[in-house]
Amino acid sequence: MTKQLKSFIDVAKDSDFPIQNLPYGIFSQTQDGERRVGVALGEWVVDLSVLEAHGFLKIQAGEQFFNQPTLNKFIATGKSHWSNIRAELQTLLSADHATLRDHQTLRDQVFFKQTDVYMHLPVQVTGYTDFYSSKEHATNVGCMFRDPKNALLANWSELPVGYNGRASSVVVSGTDIVRPSGQIKLPTEERPIFSACRKLDFELETGFIIGQSNPLGIPISIENAWDHIFGMVLFNDWSARDLQQWEYVPLGPFNAKTFASSISPWIVTLEALEPFKTHSPKQEPQPLNYLREDHSSNSYDIHLSVELKAQHAEVADVISQTNFKYMYWSMAQQLTHHTIAGCNVQVGDLMGSGTISGPTPHSYGSLLEITWNATQPLTLSNGEQRSFLQDGDTLIMKGYCQKENLRIGFGEVSGKVLPALSFNFAS
Amino acid sequence: MTKQLKSFIDVAKDSDFPIQNLPYGIFSQTQDGERRVGVALGEWVVDLSVLEAHGFLKIQAGEQFFNQPTLNKFIATGKSHWSNIRAELQTLLSADHATLRDHQTLRDQVFFKQTDVYMHLPVQVTGYTDFYSSKEHATNVGCMFRDPKNALLANWSELPVGYNGRASSVVVSGTDIVRPSGQIKLPTEERPIFSACRKLDFELETGFIIGQSNPLGIPISIENAWDHIFGMVLFNDWSARDLQQWEYVPLGPFNAKTFASSISPWIVTLEALEPFKTHSPKQEPQPLNYLREDHSSNSYDIHLSVELKAQHAEVADVISQTNFKYMYWSMAQQLTHHTIAGCNVQVGDLMGSGTISGPTPHSYGSLLEITWNATQPLTLSNGEQRSFLQDGDTLIMKGYCQKENLRIGFGEVSGKVLPALSFNFAS
Repeated sequence: MTKQLKSFIDVAKDSDFPIQNLPYGIFSQTQDGERRVGVALGEWVVDLSVLEAHGFLKIQAGEQFFNQPTLNKFIATGKSHWSNIRAELQTLLSADHATLRDHQTLRDQVFFKQTDVYMHLPVQVTGYTDFYSSKEHATNVGCMFRDPKNALLANWSELPVGYNGRASSVVVSGTDIVRPSGQIKLPTEERPIFSACRKLDFELETGFIIGQSNPLGIPISIENAWDHIFGMVLFNDWSARDLQQWEYVPLGPFNAKTFASSISPWIVTLEALEPFKTHSPKQEPQPLNYLREDHSSNSYDIHLSVELKAQHAEVADVISQTNFKYMYWSMAQQLTHHTIAGCNVQVGDLMGSGTISGPTPHSYGSLLEITWNATQPLTLSNGEQRSFLQDGDTLIMKGYCQKENLRIGFGEVSGKVLPALSFNFAS
Repeated sequence: MTKQLKSFIDVAKDSDFPIQNLPYGIFSQTQDGERRVGVALGEWVVDLSVLEAHGFLKIQAGEQFFNQPTLNKFIATGKSHWSNIRAELQTLLSADHATLRDHQTLRDQVFFKQTDVYMHLPVQVTGYTDFYSSKEHATNVGCMFRDPKNALLANWSELPVGYNGRASSVVVSGTDIVRPSGQIKLPTEERPIFSACRKLDFELETGFIIGQSNPLGIPISIENAWDHIFGMVLFNDWSARDLQQWEYVPLGPFNAKTFASSISPWIVTLEALEPFKTHSPKQEPQPLNYLREDHSSNSYDIHLSVELKAQHAEVADVISQTNFKYMYWSMAQQLTHHTIAGCNVQVGDLMGSGTISGPTPHSYGSLLEITWNATQPLTLSNGEQRSFLQDGDTLIMKGYCQKENLRIGFGEVSGKVLPALSFNFAS
């Protein structure tokens, strides 16, 4: 039973990173230092490049999967290899295994305090697609901007609506976010004005990382879709609502989203999430055949929260608590739909869930919904009010699964809002 | 005068590739053979990796820019280096210069017949964005699907509308295109059906290739935008109109476009296009400051045509003739707008113009417009009719500039439509 597995490294009971998790990330000892692959264990990073160099991991001689600046090469080795490496790591790190436990010199080379290292993007993000798969979120947005009586558009219940995002501006947690500028259209003005965004928002999402590509023209069937997924991250799809409202017809959001999207540094594997499988909401109408799957275990029970810490606030306020299990469309359905017309996905692609909102206002995944487009501002514990994000605000998303004594967590994705640039032309 | 420049290689008068052009591409001698950089000259490819290896190009010792499977590394060296290499190549290939002209052994290593080699994607397409910048096209689509009296949406005249495309499915000319399948919604049915696309279309576009990146958060000003552009290609943005109509609200086209997009193999540099600079249409209203530029020379006079060759037809029919100069928004405006909110572009990004339609039906850039959504089918010279593309059809786009005796051409981008896959589930 993996549940009983224990490491020789002490792991706090409320840690996101017990030996049952072992999420993958990319770290370096200095900001510009050499990047390599690590897994998180308690407060530590385990340097897999050292374990690999010492021959502790069954890897073909001469191959280097972990002395790499991104995880793409390792991920491309495929599901059975991921599984083997995970099993080998759990053995090496277990309390019962002497190799590493009793070898202090080696331990000094392999273990780094997480607080002493720099984390980087875990993958080269080869492509990025964002979905729109929370029924509650789509309904809320539809109520606000379209017709409350027909909040969901006709296609929403038939397919996982998605759109291409911008891969180049995906950044790792901790990266500052410069408030974007651009065209906004005020109701009082005939023409748009050039302005810093006045409605800067977050979107609470998760993302999954593609672990196996498909050739162009050959869709991934719903039965095989799970095997193409390496793992999951937390994802903040920063959004400039005022830019978005003006620009998005008829081809979708562009500058409102492409200025930055943040992911958590640790990729939690589907294998680690296995004990937390649950069912997604019942789908009505039943989807077309190519999207039809067994709904009893096609989702995960992942607690998600959002915290906002104002510039000079002592503490962060929890402003949303929700759960991944509310997602209407599963990751397998999203991936199958993505490829059904022939599109190829690639190892390292990021697929965003879309904003994850639950049924109650406290479980909404964006300020747009929480403050109902600024009509119901939030009051923070320091007395300040928020309709949208202000300069200096830090936004933190967290996620974890919990069952009896087992906690599998994602860590966090955070970002601080910096003031907009000054432009040297009249607006 | 570059116009008088002549090569020791015979170049036909109607060739797209005189010594004044020298577009860059990636070729190999066998389908899976080693890829390297070449320029086109008349009927030949000039192997730059050999010239580089022999030290004929001023390149830092030990560096290899042309013994590469893509152009990204060379392009990343920047504008002044592109210019130097172009000048060196024109000297080496000129009729007055003996080095190569009089060295038959070397010539045998350097020149390959274009008909004897395989062409590949010229760049690793790091990102792909498509714009929507032809007023005639946007007006036609607006008339067909929205309100003919207000065909252009309010934002269209204020900003170059664009959306993120899918980079992984950009393919080189000559790649077969499998007819996509997916959800289509028939007006007679309550729910969508699963079907092969019944309204497969092309979109006549050009694309430009980013030659210089910008850091995340730092926009490219309109004054500097041209320096970030390496060159241009022909671009066919294949489109599944029926998939698109059902899926595109509210986040834009997805599967209707992501199944394939084809580019021509040769990148024509902006330097080669310089003699063909012209002005774009007058912009009314005048754009906001960040998009304002001198309109006297912000476009190019590029003749564009589309040919359709049915499976068993003897000849291809020219079904559209138009010109790049009709584009309302310039490439500099597109690029500046793309980055104004902070988005970073990368060397190797492809930026599509959007469908290029002219003022008359024979200058429309898609079958959707030419046949006015199948209400006015085309009759081909073999008697067959077309509303949209049929299996076996080959679609060919060509482009060239002409001024007195100087012709700078793009070659072509072509693709043949293959039948849809059979799926092993009931629709």
